[in-house]
Amino acid sequence: MAKTVVTPWEVKGEIDYEKLMKEFGVSPMPELPEEFRENLLFRRGKIFAQRDFERIIEAYKKKKPFVMMTGLMPSGSFHIGHMILARQMIFYQSIGAKVYIAVADLEAYNARGTSIEEGRKIAIDQYISNYIALGLRPENCEIYFQSARSKNAKKSNAYYSLQNLLSRHATFNEFRAVYGEITPGKMISSLLQASDMLHAQLPEFEGKVPVVVPVGIDQDPHIRLARDMSGRIKEYSFLQLSSTYHQFVPGLDGGKMSSSDPLFHVTLLDDPKTVKNKINKYAFSGGQPTIEEHRKHGGNPDIDVPYQWLTFLEEDDKKLKQIHDGYKSGKMLTGELKAILIDKLNVFLEEHQKKREAAKKRVDEFILKA
Amino acid sequence: MAKTVVTPWEVKGEIDYEKLMKEFGVSPMPELPEEFRENLLFRRGKIFAQRDFERIIEAYKKKKPFVMMTGLMPSGSFHIGHMILARQMIFYQSIGAKVYIAVADLEAYNARGTSIEEGRKIAIDQYISNYIALGLRPENCEIYFQSARSKNAKKSNAYYSLQNLLSRHATFNEFRAVYGEITPGKMISSLLQASDMLHAQLPEFEGKVPVVVPVGIDQDPHIRLARDMSGRIKEYSFLQLSSTYHQFVPGLDGGKMSSSDPLFHVTLLDDPKTVKNKINKYAFSGGQPTIEEHRKHGGNPDIDVPYQWLTFLEEDDKKLKQIHDGYKSGKMLTGELKAILIDKLNVFLEEHQKKREAAKKRVDEFILKA
Repeated sequence: MAKTVVTPWEVKGEIDYEKLMKEFGVSPMPELPEEFRENLLFRRGKIFAQRDFERIIEAYKKKKPFVMMTGLMPSGSFHIGHMILARQMIFYQSIGAKVYIAVADLEAYNARGTSIEEGRKIAIDQYISNYIALGLRPENCEIYFQSARSKNAKKSNAYYSLQNLLSRHATFNEFRAVYGEITPGKMISSLLQASDMLHAQLPEFEGKVPVVVPVGIDQDPHIRLARDMSGRIKEYSFLQLSSTYHQFVPGLDGGKMSSSDPLFHVTLLDDPKTVKNKINKYAFSGGQPTIEEHRKHGGNPDIDVPYQWLTFLEEDDKKLKQIHDGYKSGKMLTGELKAILIDKLNVFLEEHQKKREAAKKRVDEFILKA
Repeated sequence: MAKTVVTPWEVKGEIDYEKLMKEFGVSPMPELPEEFRENLLFRRGKIFAQRDFERIIEAYKKKKPFVMMTGLMPSGSFHIGHMILARQMIFYQSIGAKVYIAVADLEAYNARGTSIEEGRKIAIDQYISNYIALGLRPENCEIYFQSARSKNAKKSNAYYSLQNLLSRHATFNEFRAVYGEITPGKMISSLLQASDMLHAQLPEFEGKVPVVVPVGIDQDPHIRLARDMSGRIKEYSFLQLSSTYHQFVPGLDGGKMSSSDPLFHVTLLDDPKTVKNKINKYAFSGGQPTIEEHRKHGGNPDIDVPYQWLTFLEEDDKKLKQIHDGYKSGKMLTGELKAILIDKLNVFLEEHQKKREAAKKRVDEFILKA
């Protein structure tokens, strides 16, 4: 087994979330209100850790305004793994949060050489239209491009000035801790990302309201740096950022799902045949080598990728338990489990792809208003 | 004699402009049109070198649009040395250029810890009101704060995005060459300064027009870095920046005049008594130790600070030559030369200070329009 590495620039090996919580110094989730527990991601512990999340719970309980901030890197295809963030956007919006979504087109230019035009196209085709199809509403939602924060000059000036002001409050070593190796492009992107997370609290935007940034645990160094800088700057007084940490949806091979490994993920635009082939061919199985052994010893759902995917996709806890127990006992075979996932995915994707076609026409409702 | 050092962060020792031209790889001034030669700074070689200045001459001759860009660091007092840049603003404006003036408030925050509010106050009280009193007009002039580029969001978005995009096109070593030691704050300031110099050419501003940036030779590394980055970026096609290099007005002690050495400069708000005392007490003289020796050997105007100041202040070439020859021959004594300068300065300052009081009320015509 490869040594486990979890940094913003590399995730590999077996992931022990308990251990990572200790290493990163994040806290377990607190007691959650019912509306949160109704959400699969919270209920099943997929969102498993947090920093300063009590502030968000409190705002929710007191019906005070708060912001959920996230970003998207316009590269590659929107896949099943990206849905975790999309669902959180939609959940927070449904419970009254304002949602800020940054299209990291300047970061994509600096980190990957993606032109601004290309980044804009990918963001709309692959991300924003899928968010809308998944249920994002235009009310209480600001989707913006880093290269064009706002139609209101005061807002834009404040957002970019914050990026500049923050630079006085970090050292090169702190950037190295986030990126391993740094370049001027990565450094300035990190500062803009910190402004993405913090600027909602500026007087030109929402004022001093709690902001939660949901991320994978590998992204925690970015959160820590933004938190550290925000505490040091004297021009503004920020509430400390809140964050939550979600588990990764594993790639079909059991590693971290990546946009750059098209064989090991399922995109939201894949057709039924592609989905079936990918899962049958590449999904890492927790089943036994032969039917006889499987009937006798049962499968291991904990390492079985199709089962793991179902924990993100099957809303019904009872159904999920039946699958779990059936597979573990040996009653359900690997092929049967895969067939359940393939069917679940294809029913969902057929419906989703129709919604996405309709959503494409609505993109302007979301991106031309900030 | 101290070793000569001329870098953006230090100027000391005797300054040999011929030698500096070779070291920095800048070119001598070309044949200039009459309107340029009428200006004291061009006529007397105070502006002594350039890069790509032919482009500006050509635009001037063909009556095509061009931009003169400069900046101000809001710190300390506006002194006689600052007038060189102010006069160039006013000159270029008078011959048809559009003038862009950046108030480097974000740079002052990052490099010196000046708050944005304090920077704004200093910029208005010390710089902008003096520019207006010296003759700057609001037409064809954009004075802006780095922290608030424009009232038009498209312009602001383009200006700050350019700062971010440029970061991909420079290395840490290049920033080190400009600053000696770098910090994240200096690096991001350098990128914003490059955007200050280049953004006039964006479609949101003037489009692809020639831009000249007049600087002291010590600031050439900033120009070079901006030129290098502008040539590498593919998102935009820039005309190469033009620049000119002017001599320093020496401080009263003969060193580089600095805002932080109040004894060795004269500010535009000094009263007549202060001016008289400073010059009589501190001005480095090229005269002989005794009257007898002075009458016999004559003074040395080339190293005499009062005479050097007059070369920047006395418009009349004939008068200046009389002073030069009188001093060199020994006919004119050091005290007499100083008296001419004191009188020249005090007549100018009395008039200027009145104009500045009136100018204070007009600041909004200049800064609220960009």
